[in-house]
Amino acid sequence: MTGKMKVAVMNGIGKMGYTTRDIPTPKDDEVLVKLEYVGICGSDMHYYETGAIGHYVVKPPFVLGHEPGGTVVEVGSKVKHLKVGDRVALEPGKTCGHCKFCREGQYNLCPDVVFFATPPVDGVFQEYVAHEAALCFKLPENVSTLEGALIEPLAVGFHAANQGGAHAGQTAVVMGAGCIGLMTMMALKAEGVSHVYVVDIMQARLDKALELGADGVINGKEQDAVQAVLDLTDGFGCDLVIETAGTEFTTRQAIEMVHKGATIVLVGYSKSGEMTLPVSLALDKELTFKTVFRYRHIYPMAIDAVASGKINLKGVVTNIFDFDDIQNAMDKSIADKANIVKAVVKIADETKI
Amino acid sequence: MTGKMKVAVMNGIGKMGYTTRDIPTPKDDEVLVKLEYVGICGSDMHYYETGAIGHYVVKPPFVLGHEPGGTVVEVGSKVKHLKVGDRVALEPGKTCGHCKFCREGQYNLCPDVVFFATPPVDGVFQEYVAHEAALCFKLPENVSTLEGALIEPLAVGFHAANQGGAHAGQTAVVMGAGCIGLMTMMALKAEGVSHVYVVDIMQARLDKALELGADGVINGKEQDAVQAVLDLTDGFGCDLVIETAGTEFTTRQAIEMVHKGATIVLVGYSKSGEMTLPVSLALDKELTFKTVFRYRHIYPMAIDAVASGKINLKGVVTNIFDFDDIQNAMDKSIADKANIVKAVVKIADETKI
Amino acid sequence: MTGKMKVAVMNGIGKMGYTTRDIPTPKDDEVLVKLEYVGICGSDMHYYETGAIGHYVVKPPFVLGHEPGGTVVEVGSKVKHLKVGDRVALEPGKTCGHCKFCREGQYNLCPDVVFFATPPVDGVFQEYVAHEAALCFKLPENVSTLEGALIEPLAVGFHAANQGGAHAGQTAVVMGAGCIGLMTMMALKAEGVSHVYVVDIMQARLDKALELGADGVINGKEQDAVQAVLDLTDGFGCDLVIETAGTEFTTRQAIEMVHKGATIVLVGYSKSGEMTLPVSLALDKELTFKTVFRYRHIYPMAIDAVASGKINLKGVVTNIFDFDDIQNAMDKSIADKANIVKAVVKIADETKI
Amino acid sequence: MTGKMKVAVMNGIGKMGYTTRDIPTPKDDEVLVKLEYVGICGSDMHYYETGAIGHYVVKPPFVLGHEPGGTVVEVGSKVKHLKVGDRVALEPGKTCGHCKFCREGQYNLCPDVVFFATPPVDGVFQEYVAHEAALCFKLPENVSTLEGALIEPLAVGFHAANQGGAHAGQTAVVMGAGCIGLMTMMALKAEGVSHVYVVDIMQARLDKALELGADGVINGKEQDAVQAVLDLTDGFGCDLVIETAGTEFTTRQAIEMVHKGATIVLVGYSKSGEMTLPVSLALDKELTFKTVFRYRHIYPMAIDAVASGKINLKGVVTNIFDFDDIQNAMDKSIADKANIVKAVVKIADETKI
Repeated sequence: MTGKMKVAVMNGIGKMGYTTRDIPTPKDDEVLVKLEYVGICGSDMHYYETGAIGHYVVKPPFVLGHEPGGTVVEVGSKVKHLKVGDRVALEPGKTCGHCKFCREGQYNLCPDVVFFATPPVDGVFQEYVAHEAALCFKLPENVSTLEGALIEPLAVGFHAANQGGAHAGQTAVVMGAGCIGLMTMMALKAEGVSHVYVVDIMQARLDKALELGADGVINGKEQDAVQAVLDLTDGFGCDLVIETAGTEFTTRQAIEMVHKGATIVLVGYSKSGEMTLPVSLALDKELTFKTVFRYRHIYPMAIDAVASGKINLKGVVTNIFDFDDIQNAMDKSIADKANIVKAVVKIADETKI
Repeated sequence: MTGKMKVAVMNGIGKMGYTTRDIPTPKDDEVLVKLEYVGICGSDMHYYETGAIGHYVVKPPFVLGHEPGGTVVEVGSKVKHLKVGDRVALEPGKTCGHCKFCREGQYNLCPDVVFFATPPVDGVFQEYVAHEAALCFKLPENVSTLEGALIEPLAVGFHAANQGGAHAGQTAVVMGAGCIGLMTMMALKAEGVSHVYVVDIMQARLDKALELGADGVINGKEQDAVQAVLDLTDGFGCDLVIETAGTEFTTRQAIEMVHKGATIVLVGYSKSGEMTLPVSLALDKELTFKTVFRYRHIYPMAIDAVASGKINLKGVVTNIFDFDDIQNAMDKSIADKANIVKAVVKIADETKI
Repeated sequence: MTGKMKVAVMNGIGKMGYTTRDIPTPKDDEVLVKLEYVGICGSDMHYYETGAIGHYVVKPPFVLGHEPGGTVVEVGSKVKHLKVGDRVALEPGKTCGHCKFCREGQYNLCPDVVFFATPPVDGVFQEYVAHEAALCFKLPENVSTLEGALIEPLAVGFHAANQGGAHAGQTAVVMGAGCIGLMTMMALKAEGVSHVYVVDIMQARLDKALELGADGVINGKEQDAVQAVLDLTDGFGCDLVIETAGTEFTTRQAIEMVHKGATIVLVGYSKSGEMTLPVSLALDKELTFKTVFRYRHIYPMAIDAVASGKINLKGVVTNIFDFDDIQNAMDKSIADKANIVKAVVKIADETKI
Repeated sequence: MTGKMKVAVMNGIGKMGYTTRDIPTPKDDEVLVKLEYVGICGSDMHYYETGAIGHYVVKPPFVLGHEPGGTVVEVGSKVKHLKVGDRVALEPGKTCGHCKFCREGQYNLCPDVVFFATPPVDGVFQEYVAHEAALCFKLPENVSTLEGALIEPLAVGFHAANQGGAHAGQTAVVMGAGCIGLMTMMALKAEGVSHVYVVDIMQARLDKALELGADGVINGKEQDAVQAVLDLTDGFGCDLVIETAGTEFTTRQAIEMVHKGATIVLVGYSKSGEMTLPVSLALDKELTFKTVFRYRHIYPMAIDAVASGKINLKGVVTNIFDFDDIQNAMDKSIADKANIVKAVVKIADETKI
């Protein structure tokens, strides 16, 4: 397939625009995907607002977006498991396959990863992308490419649940009911966790959590979350906390609300990068802290969970913006965080199947 | 509480009868439970038919039954977590708490365990039992004592699932759709396993498996189960097999139907105690074999799973016999294995709550 | 055995004295042990200096000391594995055996533990103690009761190594070369860890570390420990850090010196109980933090390791004080921390075998 | 480097010969290695004697040998971690890096592996080989290329120990004192296992086991190995058995000699491929069976263990044959199994360093 495609670019802090580029040609082990939906992630917003995340600095023009779903329109000569017309979710990170981390199965830690929308690697707010076929996962008939786009944040939630050793019989608490918090809550339920409670300070988000399947919610503005969790567990404390809010306050609460020997999974990044924590209390309780950097080995199971109806991905989406409206999509996502839980950019109509 | 109680006893092979004994007095750390339902297990039937299992030999009069549910009627002085009127499921094995196995958390392997209906320890086909309070688990309002009685076989299913490392994303196969096979299938689903298929040669049992939530069934009389599983997994093989049928044939099939690196959990006992297996094939595939002896740490999570509606315990019960009809209960359970998936003896009316 | 015994008591902050008490009578499941050596732990010193650790407050007269070795002189009627004359190491914490933690094998987290020298429970700076026989571990002929006393701090080192998942092939760093740091270093070596480096700022302690088997040492006053570890690992970072120094500075260094996906075990308590840490860096590296509270299931393996010559326990001891000299023993241990790595109180001559 | 090299080929069952081939040219990510020592493995002998192993059938001329050590003489343009003159051990299996097994870290199960001397892939009884640089592990100065060749069978031993969860404090038994049994024994010791006993029926091999560090040996001709192990463990049974003899008899003994909850690792292949085992006994004891297919992630740690003096690889070698004597090397290895524990073919003098 040859021709030109429309690409949305970040031309500077707070400035989106469009450009035209050649439609890429897939290599032997790649497929060309016509993109249909691409989610807007918190990291996209952060690059857009500030121009950088840590030492990753945007050099305009830069393409944001790393949560893509679309339809295969061309297939490399060595690709066997996909064909034209297959709808796919795209895992955004291409890894080396040979380093210690890749060989040992922790490919998310590969130092040579090439990851969409992580400077200097462009993202996918564009009409087409050529991507390693092994990273394109076929969607079953009852899963849309809108849902396919959302497999990426769901993968973070599942990885967080896995890092926490989530399992049936547990009582877990998710701190924060943003997109990742909600995804994590649904992942915990899909993994059989018995009771999942969600803590936030925005009631609209807590209502969304209940709608999507949380067993209970705690509004941290109205209640002491620690006491609330102790009350819910006969004073024993919960088994697992997954912290997605990224604040010192909620992380301290996590340490207080778990029982001895429990696990806390840290997912959210704090603004300063630092937190002051009651480490001695953690020692007294012999706690384990796990952390989350992206995810590994999640796409097939996550797609399965959506297909089987265990996860309501569409329910997370509060806003769908047109590709032509991308400046507004970015601006509004930032301005109205209280109401926009998850925004998605529609690049093209979904291919009929 | 003083007085006499009615006790059903096995007076010899194939001979049930009744006797009268003193209602026991609970010790400080015990509760007295009025029994309402007690399940009939395959081991009860085996003792009844043959008088022994391995080196455990029945010396009549002997009381069978180790799957009890009932209501607390008296509480020892040191018991804090239970009160009169609480409905409970009773875990049947009392362990020493001090041996290497107990200290390391594998209390099901305690060599000094005292387990209901395992000669010479009497079981609970009787009106009352005094039992260690820590082994009596309170049932929530929406779980009946009939279901409480069935927590015991469900615990075997959950332990089998745990031994297999069952988790979301997997495709698992359960060989055998008897009571334990069905319990295992439901446990796997409750632990988030994506696809659970059940293999048996009796269609009635397979129909029951579908009714209780299996994702699919394979009639081994009509299909080659190995080929069927390969077809269901795009030729890749399944991730996990839990073998409850106890035959060499199905165990060999398990080895053939899993993919490399997979796990097989052996639950069912074969008649001879021996099996001839393709060990070299297992080596080529680098398989893991786990085995199951009773269970540990399951009751609270199993009760939770039933209370939350994830497990349909009542659906497993095909027959309820009156306590006065226990000879018939035993005889019929043995004679009509094709139709009786699970029989339960009703000892008394359920206490109203 | 009846009679009186001499007991050293803490009569107030900085004040030791002696009193006379009845020799205790062992219960059925206990043994009476004539104590020969009892180590002085950092917690003993802390109680002595300040009167409290957290919410554990000393109410004089109080008996310090929880690292005992001695000889069995009387055996309870139900004790089978010990006889008079057996030399033993005493695990100091008696647990309930029935709570969730005990049943699941994490007995060190038992909320009802009775632990020597933890207010209000007296310790063992005294001539005799009656103790649960299951917590008294027989020493082989080539292990002295002086070494028996030191099994306790060695157990902390082994538990730290276990919490870190220590194994052959790893490069590990121990922060801090005090008694626990040295014990941890030796435990790591005994578990097969390939390279163990020790960091401290006191050269005398580092020399001791080398003498006891460290593969290398880093003087944090002379070198940047982070850079030194990177240099030792071709810039890759180490696999495991065990932090025993209890400072924010060394904990931050730990986060910097490990590679992605690594584990940090926190053992040391900081003075304030709080630490400010670069949590975002830990997330970027997807680190795991484990913590250590006492130990579990260690005594037999630790005694084995000493008996086989893998661990040089005597080499850790820098000072042995007479029981009559206990005021001086405590004062000097506190005053001369730079030179006293580990002090032990000799209560009685070692029984000949 | 261009030119011709001498290659030893199997021309038919029991017939070795030589041929001349072009020295291969390394690709960008490969190195060219001048081979110095190549071990003779049991599989080489089996192909030589019978022409096949399972469905792997030799089609002559075929090159045997997959245990190579040598010196790098040419380096591909993209190779960074090796240079000319580096002495290396070569891991013989090249994997795809992209399949489920590779991505999850179980690369030894990769279905597309290309493994030396596994038909139709030629081995390395030849003067040079071009091999993926990532599979060539640099030897430190104190490790010879003779030892480098033996890293391969040692890797099997370490993988077996890892599969068994070997750790300090355990008592382990190795069934069989052939090359793999001895390697396993040494790996267990290097991983900190407290007591390792070796069982065989050839006293010469048991003497070798003692020489190489076994804590004890059991001659199965003179003693009942099960009873001997029970005696060594106060009747409790051992924690771990690694079965390398490949017989039903020793596998049954393994099941009998372990305690409840223990693990048995199956490494040895039986002649028929089948074994009749007391599966019910394994269920009663709730045993775990792990199996071994080659190894993964072992080379660096194994080289480390040799370099640190924990493993005496040279001590395993009983015979070194010249490359010109390969017919005799193969014939004698087969004819004199009682005395030849491990034979190695010397291809060239070791490069001086």
